[in-house]
Amino acid sequence: MSFLDHIRACNAHDLSGFRRFELDGHFVGWVRHELAEALPGVDPGFVVTADRVGIAAEIRDFEARSTLLDHAAAYLVERGTVKALRGEYYPVLPRWGAEPLARLDRAAVAAFGIEAFGLHVNGYVRGDDGLSLWIGRRAGDRDVAPGLLDNMVAGGQPIGLSLAENLEKEAAEEAGLDAATARLAKPVGAISYSLETAVGLKRDRLFVYDLELPAGITPVNTDGEVESFELWPLDRVAASVRGTDDWKFNVNLVVTDFLIRHGWLTAENEPDYLEIACGLRR
Amino acid sequence: MSFLDHIRACNAHDLSGFRRFELDGHFVGWVRHELAEALPGVDPGFVVTADRVGIAAEIRDFEARSTLLDHAAAYLVERGTVKALRGEYYPVLPRWGAEPLARLDRAAVAAFGIEAFGLHVNGYVRGDDGLSLWIGRRAGDRDVAPGLLDNMVAGGQPIGLSLAENLEKEAAEEAGLDAATARLAKPVGAISYSLETAVGLKRDRLFVYDLELPAGITPVNTDGEVESFELWPLDRVAASVRGTDDWKFNVNLVVTDFLIRHGWLTAENEPDYLEIACGLRR
Repeated sequence: MSFLDHIRACNAHDLSGFRRFELDGHFVGWVRHELAEALPGVDPGFVVTADRVGIAAEIRDFEARSTLLDHAAAYLVERGTVKALRGEYYPVLPRWGAEPLARLDRAAVAAFGIEAFGLHVNGYVRGDDGLSLWIGRRAGDRDVAPGLLDNMVAGGQPIGLSLAENLEKEAAEEAGLDAATARLAKPVGAISYSLETAVGLKRDRLFVYDLELPAGITPVNTDGEVESFELWPLDRVAASVRGTDDWKFNVNLVVTDFLIRHGWLTAENEPDYLEIACGLRR
Repeated sequence: MSFLDHIRACNAHDLSGFRRFELDGHFVGWVRHELAEALPGVDPGFVVTADRVGIAAEIRDFEARSTLLDHAAAYLVERGTVKALRGEYYPVLPRWGAEPLARLDRAAVAAFGIEAFGLHVNGYVRGDDGLSLWIGRRAGDRDVAPGLLDNMVAGGQPIGLSLAENLEKEAAEEAGLDAATARLAKPVGAISYSLETAVGLKRDRLFVYDLELPAGITPVNTDGEVESFELWPLDRVAASVRGTDDWKFNVNLVVTDFLIRHGWLTAENEPDYLEIACGLRR
């Protein structure tokens, strides 16, 4: 493994297996050809051509579009592409910050290849020997990445919450931090990747925050997602990300970005530096 | 203007006007078709096909390749594509960190579309009201960007100097900083863009540093490149970058990256946030 290998793993996909998904004249995602061809049989509201999935002209508003997507989501469960719906809805956006065109169950998002937004918080402390990062070890009973290492706080961005609200909620649930501490998180950039999965195309855009924890505050999980937290010096973090598959796939990228921004990974100690810096935001 | 407009301006190019330039089996750059067709007449060591500029098999080592490129550089001056050579040499690299395959006069680098490396240092101070950035106003007699605003320290990366050595040299020349102060500069990432110019394709990769200046140290130019330094609060910096063309073209990108990394520009206050974060490293 190398830093670059993790980036490549998060960007493995072949768009020739997909066709464009459009809503209301906006490109919003990618659908596998095989699913595309099945959709008109699921709901005649889907209008499918050889290179495009669209919807019928009479389906004009947010609720109608969302109902159509609900039918598709139910079909995905029925045929086993998706194990179960999550009951948590993501916005379907032409671009970040725009009005949502529809909502879609989180579990079905990759099947439509829509951009999924999330936030990741690097929790760190500054010591005499440099920085240390708070690492969460995910619980063994999770569906996603059981037992793997994670950021102190991370979560998807559901419809109807602002980033600030979501950060406060996730910081409380995942790390037991109060709102005042959560507000110390500083936005520092974004990570972007597109990964082909069994469900479809996972196009994730992660808003990244750094949170320097005040003395005396340590993260404590409250929702069962994290089994334990550990404080690791950056040398150990870097060696682990570079040399193992112990981390949740996308957390490798968030942590690599942290190592770059804080001067641990440099153009002088890492031959892949430029490819890494550029590859974190494809 | 907008933050994104500056990024687009730095990436305006059309590769269909160029063909690949290869040395020793490695892709290293892009040459305009018209120049490509003239090169075998300049030196028969250039071997040109419809989609590729290469060199003759018997030209095998660094010195021989560099001599060939010297002939091309002299021709570029002769025909007026390049005003004058600089007498400063850049490495021709298959990738950052590799052994140089040749050297090329800095003035001719864009004509061969090779990657040109440089470093930019954001000099800043931390006050009660947040961060302020040291801004250099370039001297009116410069060939490049006269009178425009610049980073505290910036410079191209010539062959034969390490990044640390170049940083120390540029920090002394451009801002009068001693070596101990220069070593406080922290590497924080990279900026990348490809811009078509009258000379050719400018493929710049900038290594970015942040330098928090200790109390009592202010930059003073010693080499005539900068007319004056001013300390601007980030609000003023951001308004100026967003709304004007007062900055050297690529410094807009370095400063925009600073605004992102330090939490001034966020996904909540800037609708183009994701395009900006991803666009800074193409």
